[in-house]
Amino acid sequence: MNNIYDTAYQLEKDLRQQPAFLTLTESYNKIKADEEAWALFQEFAQMQQEMQMKQMNGEGFEDDYIQRAQDVAGRATSNELISQMMTAEQQLSAVIQDINNIIMKPLQELYAPDSLNEAGDQ
Amino acid sequence: MNNIYDTAYQLEKDLRQQPAFLTLTESYNKIKADEEAWALFQEFAQMQQEMQMKQMNGEGFEDDYIQRAQDVAGRATSNELISQMMTAEQQLSAVIQDINNIIMKPLQELYAPDSLNEAGDQ
Repeated sequence: MNNIYDTAYQLEKDLRQQPAFLTLTESYNKIKADEEAWALFQEFAQMQQEMQMKQMNGEGFEDDYIQRAQDVAGRATSNELISQMMTAEQQLSAVIQDINNIIMKPLQELYAPDSLNEAGDQ
Repeated sequence: MNNIYDTAYQLEKDLRQQPAFLTLTESYNKIKADEEAWALFQEFAQMQQEMQMKQMNGEGFEDDYIQRAQDVAGRATSNELISQMMTAEQQLSAVIQDINNIIMKPLQELYAPDSLNEAGDQ
């Protein structure tokens, strides 16, 4: 039997070599080194976190809050470094989603209602 | 560069060969083939789902609801097949948690406040 942890470490290595991960690291480090971009990025990240909290608590968004959020998002995405980072993040997150779907397939199949492992097939 | 999807498929294969996954599959199929165990398992699973929903909606648990939940859990875990399945599920979930931690390390490191990728280190 192959050691599953060896494979997981290989996957970690593969992830570090993904073009999207390299771009993400590069743009994130450039943002951190750029005072203006860093302040903008933090403002944007904080706003996103705040919106997530509100959503989780079932709170609504007031009109002027939405406008403020759109303003922050607009300023953030018009920054080239931040926009590059967000694109890389989306690409990487798609790869990670794919990987999760692949790894979790055995369990999804097991619990699927029309599973191949159904008692009748034994 | 290694193909990350090849590694993910290898990980899927490794997972299918994990002793905990084999035990889980075996006990789940036996539960499905056993009318009494299957009814009990479904009652238990439904109760767990219901409790999760209540928790997510911030609802409290009334005393007699807790008692009913404990009764269902007690009857479920005293069934040997279900108890075996739950142990295997916990073991497998620990392995999956480990794997997730390994795979997600590059991103955790990147966003860590004391990250090695800090601008000053460039």
